[in-house]
Amino acid sequence: MNAQALLRPAPGTIAEVKTRLAERLGARVSAAQAVLNQHSHGEGLPAIGVPDLVVFPETNEEVAFILALCNECRVPVTPFGAGSSLEGQLAALAGGVSLDMGRFDKILDVSPDALDCRVQAGVTREALNAHVRDTGLFFPVDPGANASIGGMASTRASGTNAVRYGTMRENILGLTVVTPDGRIVRTGSRARKSSAGLDLTHLYVGSEGTLGVITEVQLKLYGLPETIVAAVCQFNSLEGAVAAVVAALQSNLRMARIELLDEVQMRAAIRYSKLDYVETPTLFLEFHGTPAGVQEEVEMMQAITADHGGGEFQFAERPEDRNRLWKARHNSYQAVMALSPGKNNMGTDACVPISALPACLLETKADIVASGLTAPIVGHVGDGNFHLGILFDPNDADETERTEALAFRTSRRAISMGGTCSGEHGVGVHKIVHMQTEHGEGVALMKAIKRALDPNGIMNPGKIYPLID
Amino acid sequence: MNAQALLRPAPGTIAEVKTRLAERLGARVSAAQAVLNQHSHGEGLPAIGVPDLVVFPETNEEVAFILALCNECRVPVTPFGAGSSLEGQLAALAGGVSLDMGRFDKILDVSPDALDCRVQAGVTREALNAHVRDTGLFFPVDPGANASIGGMASTRASGTNAVRYGTMRENILGLTVVTPDGRIVRTGSRARKSSAGLDLTHLYVGSEGTLGVITEVQLKLYGLPETIVAAVCQFNSLEGAVAAVVAALQSNLRMARIELLDEVQMRAAIRYSKLDYVETPTLFLEFHGTPAGVQEEVEMMQAITADHGGGEFQFAERPEDRNRLWKARHNSYQAVMALSPGKNNMGTDACVPISALPACLLETKADIVASGLTAPIVGHVGDGNFHLGILFDPNDADETERTEALAFRTSRRAISMGGTCSGEHGVGVHKIVHMQTEHGEGVALMKAIKRALDPNGIMNPGKIYPLID
Repeated sequence: MNAQALLRPAPGTIAEVKTRLAERLGARVSAAQAVLNQHSHGEGLPAIGVPDLVVFPETNEEVAFILALCNECRVPVTPFGAGSSLEGQLAALAGGVSLDMGRFDKILDVSPDALDCRVQAGVTREALNAHVRDTGLFFPVDPGANASIGGMASTRASGTNAVRYGTMRENILGLTVVTPDGRIVRTGSRARKSSAGLDLTHLYVGSEGTLGVITEVQLKLYGLPETIVAAVCQFNSLEGAVAAVVAALQSNLRMARIELLDEVQMRAAIRYSKLDYVETPTLFLEFHGTPAGVQEEVEMMQAITADHGGGEFQFAERPEDRNRLWKARHNSYQAVMALSPGKNNMGTDACVPISALPACLLETKADIVASGLTAPIVGHVGDGNFHLGILFDPNDADETERTEALAFRTSRRAISMGGTCSGEHGVGVHKIVHMQTEHGEGVALMKAIKRALDPNGIMNPGKIYPLID
Repeated sequence: MNAQALLRPAPGTIAEVKTRLAERLGARVSAAQAVLNQHSHGEGLPAIGVPDLVVFPETNEEVAFILALCNECRVPVTPFGAGSSLEGQLAALAGGVSLDMGRFDKILDVSPDALDCRVQAGVTREALNAHVRDTGLFFPVDPGANASIGGMASTRASGTNAVRYGTMRENILGLTVVTPDGRIVRTGSRARKSSAGLDLTHLYVGSEGTLGVITEVQLKLYGLPETIVAAVCQFNSLEGAVAAVVAALQSNLRMARIELLDEVQMRAAIRYSKLDYVETPTLFLEFHGTPAGVQEEVEMMQAITADHGGGEFQFAERPEDRNRLWKARHNSYQAVMALSPGKNNMGTDACVPISALPACLLETKADIVASGLTAPIVGHVGDGNFHLGILFDPNDADETERTEALAFRTSRRAISMGGTCSGEHGVGVHKIVHMQTEHGEGVALMKAIKRALDPNGIMNPGKIYPLID
C-alpha cells in the first residue's frame, strides 16, 4: 500500500517467525534455497521476488495461525497455488512467507443433485474434472494451464468456455477465506443467488491474494452436454474471422468455445502440434447441446462464416480428435516460444466490448506489423478477449523497449475502447501501470478497501494497487 | 454502524442543509409533508422513517454536491428509486435526506452491436424494454414490479427469467457511483469480463444504498428469442411439481422461467385474475430459443413433468396470452392481498440449493399448515427461491406473533440448508436479524468495508448491518 510495505523484514524478524512457524508446522516450513527459488515467480515474464520462507499448511487453522503470526510481526505473505499465474502475482517482492497451498488438495463435497461442489483451494481444475467425470458433471472454466481452483478464483480466471459458461466470477458460489488477522470466514452460500448483504465472495474473487487467503471454493458444476462437436473454420482475412464472431454473438448463438488464432499463431501451432491446416486466420469452435440443438447451431454458424469468407468446417467429433485440437490450442504459448527459441514472450490480455473487437484487433494487428516484432494473436474472441505473445530478446534493449511499447499501447487501446487491460490474467505486477487509467477514482476505493481488510499491508504487497496515491 | 447513527440530526442542522441545498437545487428540495410521507417507506411491510427533506437531483454533480454536504453535516441520506422495495430499504430511519432518483430517467446509450446499454439509475425496467424493443433486444431481469434499474442494482434483484439469464449481479457490467464524500466513480467497463483489480461493481450491487449512490448502470442486453412458448402444467402434489423442477435442472434444460404456485396461491390467482385453472400446485413455464430448440425442450419437459404426476401442458404462444399469464403471476401479491382484505402480508425470500428445495418447501408447507395461518407459496423455483405471503391482522397480537415466528423459521430453515434468508429482496430492516446467523464472521468484514467507504455512516443508516458488534 505504501513504499514501506516493500521493505523486506529484518533478518531477526524472519528468524523469529521461522522458529514459531516450525513449532507448529515442523518440516512444513522451508528455507531451502531451491524451494525459495521455486516460489519466487510464476510463469510468463519474470517478476522475481525470492521469499524468506515457504510454508505448506494443511488446514484452515494452520493458515489462520500463519497469517496472524505474520500480521503480528509485519511479515509479508504471498499465496502460491499451482504456480501458473502470468502477471507476476507470485513474486515475493518484499520477501517474507510464500504460502504454498499445494496440500489443500481435497475435494470436500460433490453434489450431483445441487450441481455444485466444494474444493480446497489447491485442487487443480484437471483433478476436479477427473474426480467428477463419473457423475456426468464437469467444471467448465478452462484457462489452459492446469491451475489451482484457488488461484483461478484469485485472478478471476476464465479461458475457453467462458462465452457460454462464464468466468470464475459467475461460477463461484462461496468461499472460505482467512483474513490477515487470522479469522476464518465463510462467504456466500450454496444458493444460486442471494441478496443478503455485501457480496464478499466477489470481492475476494480477483483480489489476487491481497485481502486474505482463499482456502476453499464452492463451485457450480454442469451436466456434461449430450453432444459436443468441435470444428475448425479458416478465413482469408482477420476481418472476416472477427466479423463472423460478432455476427454469431448477435444472433444468440451460444457456442461453448469461439477461439481465434491469427496466421502467425497458426504457423506456430501447425509447426508445434503438427496440425494439418493452412496458415491463415482461423476459428476453433465448439458446440454443446442436444443433438438437434447442436445440429441447428452448426448450420447457423456455417451460414454466418460462409457469409464472411470462411471455408468449410473441418469437424472433430470423436473425443480424441477434439482433445488433440484443444491441446494444440492450449499449447499456443509453447508453440509461440518454439518459433524463436531463446526469446522471451510478453503477453497482453486486452478485452473489449464485442462491438469494438474488429477495430481493436485490426488496429493492433497493424501496430504489430509496424513494430516489426513477431507477436502472434490468440483470443477468446467470444468474450472480446485476445492475447498477443510478443517475442523479444531480453538482452536486446531496443527490441525490449519496442516490445514494452507495443504491449503498453495494446492495453491502452483496449481501455480507450471501453474495455480492460486484463480480461483474465489479473493485474499482478505487470498491469499496475494501467490501473489509474482504467479505474480513475476507483483506485482510491480499492485502496480504502485494502486498508480496511489488511491494515498492516502484509498480503501480497506490491500487487494490483499503484503505490502513489 | 452504531446506535448514534440512528439519532436524527438536530433541527438547526436540517435547516442549514435545506438552505444550502435550495441554493443549488431551488424547488427541487422539498419539506412538504405529503412528499416526506411518500418517501418514508417502500412496499411490503411497513418500515416507516419520515425524512426531513426530499431532494430531486438531475446530474451526477448534483448528487455529489448533496452527499458531500450531508457528509460534512452528518445528515443521513436514503436513496429512493421507484419505491417498490420490500424490506424497508427506503425508510429514513434517522430522518435526513431522501434522495429521489426519479429524474435520472435517461437512457444514455444503447448498443445493439455490443449487446449492452447505459442507463441512468431512475430508468424503470419497463421503460428500458419499451425503448429497446425496436432494436430486437431486451433486458431480461424481471422482478415483477416496475422497479428502477438503480434500485434493482442496489438490491441485487432478480425475479422470473433469472434461471436462464441470471440476476442483476450477472447482468451489470459497470456503474457510476457517488461516494459519501462526493466523488463520482465509474466502476467496471464495457468488456464482458475483466480481471483488472477489485470488483467494485459487484460490491456496490446489492449494497442497498449503504456505500454510496448508484447513478448510472451499464447493462447487458439480449437478442429477443426467435421463439417464445409459455406453458402451464398442473400437479396433484407439491412434491411432484418440485421434483419435476429439480429433474429438469439436472437435465440441462435451460428454460427462461420456472415458476411454482402452490394451491393457495393458485386459488388467489384464479380469483384475482379470472384464470381457468384448477386449485392445485402449478408450474408456469417459459421456453426461449430457436423453433427446433424450443420444441425439443418442451418435449423433454413434458416427459419430465408426466413422470412426476404433471398434467397436460396448457400452452400460451400468442404474445397476448403469454402476457395475460405472466401478468397473473406478477399480480400474486395483489391476489394474495385480495384473499383477506384488510390484512397485512409478511413476505419471506428463502433461497436454497436446488437439491434442498423439495425438503425446504415441504417442511415449510407443513409449518404453514401447523401454524393455522394463510400463507400462499410462490417461487422462482428454478433458482431455489420461493416466497411466502403470510396474511395477518396487525391488530391481532397473537396472529402477528405467529406470523413473525413462521417467517423467522422459514428464513432460518433456508440458512440451515445451505441457503440464504434473501434470494432477491435484500436485507433492509426486516432481514437484519438473520445476518449474523447467515454470515458469521463475514458480518465483521462487511462492517469494516462499510466503515472504510462511509466513515461517517451517513448512507442509509439502520439497514443491512446489525448494530451490535
